[in-house]
Amino acid sequence: MNRALLPLSRGNEVVVRAIEESDLLSAMCRIIVEVGYRMAWVGVPQQDTARTVTPVAWAGEVGQYLEKAHISWADEPRGHGPAGRAVRSGEPQICQDFSTDPSMAPWIEDAKKHRIASSAVLPLKNESSVFSILSIYSADTNAFDADELNLLRELASVLSFGIRALRDHSEREAFETRWRTSLEATVGAIAATVEKRDPYTAGHQHRVAKLAVAIARELQLSENAIQGIYLASLIHDVGKIVVPTDVLNKPGRLSELEFQLIKTHVQAGYEIVKNVAFPWPIGEIVLQHHERLDGSGYPRGLRSEAILVEAKIMAVADVVDAMMSRRPYRAALGLDAALEEIANGSGKLYHPSAVASCISLFRQKGFHFD
Amino acid sequence: MNRALLPLSRGNEVVVRAIEESDLLSAMCRIIVEVGYRMAWVGVPQQDTARTVTPVAWAGEVGQYLEKAHISWADEPRGHGPAGRAVRSGEPQICQDFSTDPSMAPWIEDAKKHRIASSAVLPLKNESSVFSILSIYSADTNAFDADELNLLRELASVLSFGIRALRDHSEREAFETRWRTSLEATVGAIAATVEKRDPYTAGHQHRVAKLAVAIARELQLSENAIQGIYLASLIHDVGKIVVPTDVLNKPGRLSELEFQLIKTHVQAGYEIVKNVAFPWPIGEIVLQHHERLDGSGYPRGLRSEAILVEAKIMAVADVVDAMMSRRPYRAALGLDAALEEIANGSGKLYHPSAVASCISLFRQKGFHFD
Repeated sequence: MNRALLPLSRGNEVVVRAIEESDLLSAMCRIIVEVGYRMAWVGVPQQDTARTVTPVAWAGEVGQYLEKAHISWADEPRGHGPAGRAVRSGEPQICQDFSTDPSMAPWIEDAKKHRIASSAVLPLKNESSVFSILSIYSADTNAFDADELNLLRELASVLSFGIRALRDHSEREAFETRWRTSLEATVGAIAATVEKRDPYTAGHQHRVAKLAVAIARELQLSENAIQGIYLASLIHDVGKIVVPTDVLNKPGRLSELEFQLIKTHVQAGYEIVKNVAFPWPIGEIVLQHHERLDGSGYPRGLRSEAILVEAKIMAVADVVDAMMSRRPYRAALGLDAALEEIANGSGKLYHPSAVASCISLFRQKGFHFD
Repeated sequence: MNRALLPLSRGNEVVVRAIEESDLLSAMCRIIVEVGYRMAWVGVPQQDTARTVTPVAWAGEVGQYLEKAHISWADEPRGHGPAGRAVRSGEPQICQDFSTDPSMAPWIEDAKKHRIASSAVLPLKNESSVFSILSIYSADTNAFDADELNLLRELASVLSFGIRALRDHSEREAFETRWRTSLEATVGAIAATVEKRDPYTAGHQHRVAKLAVAIARELQLSENAIQGIYLASLIHDVGKIVVPTDVLNKPGRLSELEFQLIKTHVQAGYEIVKNVAFPWPIGEIVLQHHERLDGSGYPRGLRSEAILVEAKIMAVADVVDAMMSRRPYRAALGLDAALEEIANGSGKLYHPSAVASCISLFRQKGFHFD
């Protein structure tokens, strides 16, 4: 019983526990050698013009046999042995007696020297190709009867599955990282587009991001929500691209029409980012950052319960930085005036906990813009 | 031998071949019942407040037992049975005789009715949690000796690995898709930012994209390279954001200084997109699209061999669309003039095969802008 069950059971165990592909391959070769074979190795068929089959793991009395074997899967004598045929056909190749197999000619002398008499080569496949071969040598001729071959096929199948699973796992992580990185880079690129045209807005967006994140952290929002607030803040005024520079930078008081024009920036910002499938409601936050609790904000006059907490936090940070900054039409109003504004509007215009956190950040916790 | 080997071997087979998680779970339950158990089922511990353990697959004489069992992992009588304990502890729970186990009180009557006398519940785990349980019932008391339990543990381990592998595989695909989609959406968002400010550039970018892709296809570039040309074309003039509208739209002849200002758009475009890790050289293509074969282009005066083929193709499409369009400082010059320009510059300024393909597209193949 052990002869058949133990290798399979141990094969499963190494596959289930594997973390590194190379360790998995070596462990599987060792299991096969422990079954009673002379040696086992795994080779990777290279896609370059030489078409060599490169050994990447092995176990048993490999000696210098493998080193000298120069196995290939090209159309040449060393590519017509069992390994080359397994790569090209995708089917197992059994050679029960090297001494009577003409395709073994390139290796027969070395095989005798290393007491190898027969072999089974099993392709390891994914949906589209043979990505490796598992090659098993016996000291005996006719070593591979039907039961034996079934066991080896099953080990190869489990190994092949394990390799694919390890690769899927690491590619899953890599693609998730690439996706998240690309979303951050997207925000960076959009912010850079604005920055090129309007350095004031760029600096403002970075300061709002810093303050909004600090407030969100005080309010103990999740790290994921904080990341959303950070990215939304970095581009919250991107829609100002639609407002003519003359109006944006007008030194005097804005006409009603000019103010209407400025107000369009939240909708324009929403439209710029709405088609990026962020895992945070970036577009909504941008759209809502001028809404006020009592419904007096724009563009939709939403009331408190309809406004995202992220937008409420950003509104506070936005007002504070805007008041602390010099604008074309006025001097900077200073920290005291900014904090007085949000304190006066707390509960009416601005989210009370965000206001309280913001004041505490500046007054007690040493928060400052760089 | 079969009693131990066959289930394991069949378990491996269903895991290796599985495409859908639900099919895999059902198949594994059937294998366990075929070993000789009365029934087997897989349950998912829900994370909501009710903390039920929801059956998702089963096999054997399940009858109405499962339906009435209402198993949970909450702190209540139905959460203190073997299943609830397995979820909370992450360890297998064996109950060799229901009739002597007080924790089985909620189920004992129904268990008798369905001739169930003992059970083994095996947790299916990933790195961080128990995502399912595998529950196995026997008609006999003391059905689970050490060998039997080893077999079941191994089946559970293989099943658990198979589920994780299936999930990794589908998440790998999902994240790759999300990543690719987000890159396209990034280009869309950058293009939208420009479009909001400058509708002429937006239309121009779309037309250049259409023509450049058609030329690239004629030249038999890979689909991947064509995708890169498409996306680069859609934002190739994004750097014009740095050029004041007054200069961009100046009706008269540009001064040397104004022309220098316009030329900065390629570098500005490069800087906007350079931090997005596109799998195509989008930034380089944007940077090079005003280079000319003889080194007379800008910004770096590169010669033919140093210019990306994508940029050479885009240069041809860009010149043709610019000449065919009305500009603030001149009327549209028309198709004939545009094709004459690239024909005259072929080999000196413009990539000869791209020129030939472009002319053939318009003259023989009915290409037109919408």
